[in-house]
Amino acid sequence: MAHEYRYRRRVEFSETDLAGIVHFSNYYRYMEAAEHEFFRSLGLSIHLERDGRVVGWPRVASECSFKRPLRFEDEFEVHLVVRKKNHGSLIYDFTFLDDQGRPTANGSIKVACVDYDPATGKMKSMRIPDFIAEKIEEAPSSEE
Amino acid sequence: MAHEYRYRRRVEFSETDLAGIVHFSNYYRYMEAAEHEFFRSLGLSIHLERDGRVVGWPRVASECSFKRPLRFEDEFEVHLVVRKKNHGSLIYDFTFLDDQGRPTANGSIKVACVDYDPATGKMKSMRIPDFIAEKIEEAPSSEE
Amino acid sequence: MAHEYRYRRRVEFSETDLAGIVHFSNYYRYMEAAEHEFFRSLGLSIHLERDGRVVGWPRVASECSFKRPLRFEDEFEVHLVVRKKNHGSLIYDFTFLDDQGRPTANGSIKVACVDYDPATGKMKSMRIPDFIAEKIEEAPSSEE
Amino acid sequence: MAHEYRYRRRVEFSETDLAGIVHFSNYYRYMEAAEHEFFRSLGLSIHLERDGRVVGWPRVASECSFKRPLRFEDEFEVHLVVRKKNHGSLIYDFTFLDDQGRPTANGSIKVACVDYDPATGKMKSMRIPDFIAEKIEEAPSSEE
Repeated sequence: MAHEYRYRRRVEFSETDLAGIVHFSNYYRYMEAAEHEFFRSLGLSIHLERDGRVVGWPRVASECSFKRPLRFEDEFEVHLVVRKKNHGSLIYDFTFLDDQGRPTANGSIKVACVDYDPATGKMKSMRIPDFIAEKIEEAPSSEE
Repeated sequence: MAHEYRYRRRVEFSETDLAGIVHFSNYYRYMEAAEHEFFRSLGLSIHLERDGRVVGWPRVASECSFKRPLRFEDEFEVHLVVRKKNHGSLIYDFTFLDDQGRPTANGSIKVACVDYDPATGKMKSMRIPDFIAEKIEEAPSSEE
Repeated sequence: MAHEYRYRRRVEFSETDLAGIVHFSNYYRYMEAAEHEFFRSLGLSIHLERDGRVVGWPRVASECSFKRPLRFEDEFEVHLVVRKKNHGSLIYDFTFLDDQGRPTANGSIKVACVDYDPATGKMKSMRIPDFIAEKIEEAPSSEE
Repeated sequence: MAHEYRYRRRVEFSETDLAGIVHFSNYYRYMEAAEHEFFRSLGLSIHLERDGRVVGWPRVASECSFKRPLRFEDEFEVHLVVRKKNHGSLIYDFTFLDDQGRPTANGSIKVACVDYDPATGKMKSMRIPDFIAEKIEEAPSSEE
């Protein structure tokens, strides 16, 4: 059972904008990448194909607050914490830390578990399958 | 004095992901593009150079909730409303509407006004300059 | 029968990088967007679903040369010309023009026509279907 | 003196498109990321600030041919080779290899060395500075 994950990364040139800092839309890509590495660290995938169907995790809501900019080639860490585990959804909190460990941004993402049919593109809410649910737990409240 | 703007757009192929829908990070790009068109509609720019300095608008916080997916070639509207105008910051609300006028997502972005020095990359909070402030007003509360 | 298309666009903030110019990867997105508008102008789509299958157009090769940078809020035109129409592929040439009509970049993309099965993700080369082929022609050689 | 570099990476969700494969524009981001890691491996940066000026490397031309698609979570290698070193420019060749070592794409990028003034955004061609030039060499022709 895991409730957190630490993901490291470096700012790429194509992620900056003319103000010389990371474009804010990329923080959402970073948070998602941390979530996907978290799943892989558990032997899972965020896009799991089984018998022609997919267990998928569309985003329900996301948010981020920006404290200090990240710049080209900066290394940073995204600390993922599972804040809430419901029957059919998860809420993650994310803290961005620069290479000196200072928080530079905070975000969260709520995702829903769906059964997805690649042939039609249709998605249907579902309970988190046991083989996934048994690997993920809520963080103790002090870590929230 | 303006407090809203309607921005139209069509989903591009490169904005979709393997689930066949718009990747959620692009909603933040869409909201920003609506904000920038709003500024241009007022004869302004979000990156205004004057005497070697720039009046810039870094993002302080952003959020979005996703109700219905947008797909390749879907046309949609982003309805921007100025929810709050402070001395040195603005808060926008955004409603995404599909081509039948149904809301598909809701978001908001808070931006701060800064004096930005392109030579050093340094940013400093500042009061919104009068020539900008006098063109933008808060929406009447019924529109929030 | 059409062999060219003119597509207009404005540089977005998120498409710039810390050098203050459009990141070169975006020229490929721009060329593709011009191609897709060209298809729509003919009543077609680049991702056409029929009976649970898709007629798709994966990229075989692409290139671009950069002469003058494009910057934030610059308006530009992408002039698409059909250089070559084969049984199962098309080659487009693209000229980027700034708002004074000066060429700023030149590129080309070769695409292949495939039958794509969304359920399995499998792609198979195919002859361009007649209803598409009859709407697109090679440009006269003087325009190449 | 170095003339090649091997860069590893994994396909991210946001880099795929509705055809279930990596969007072709991302291959250009991947090639650039390999180039920038190559520079860092030499103790350099692709955006080197010195005395308020920047030694920068705008792209002159780029191309890529696509043989086999890459999909979500695929691991791949980008093998960079310095094909040509001129007084003021470099040409790199790139081979993309899947996790079984099979080539999936081939590309190249030509970059020019410039003196860049961040205050004005002006770029001027320059000879590659010695401290950079002495670390990079052309690959022996058999490797081209």
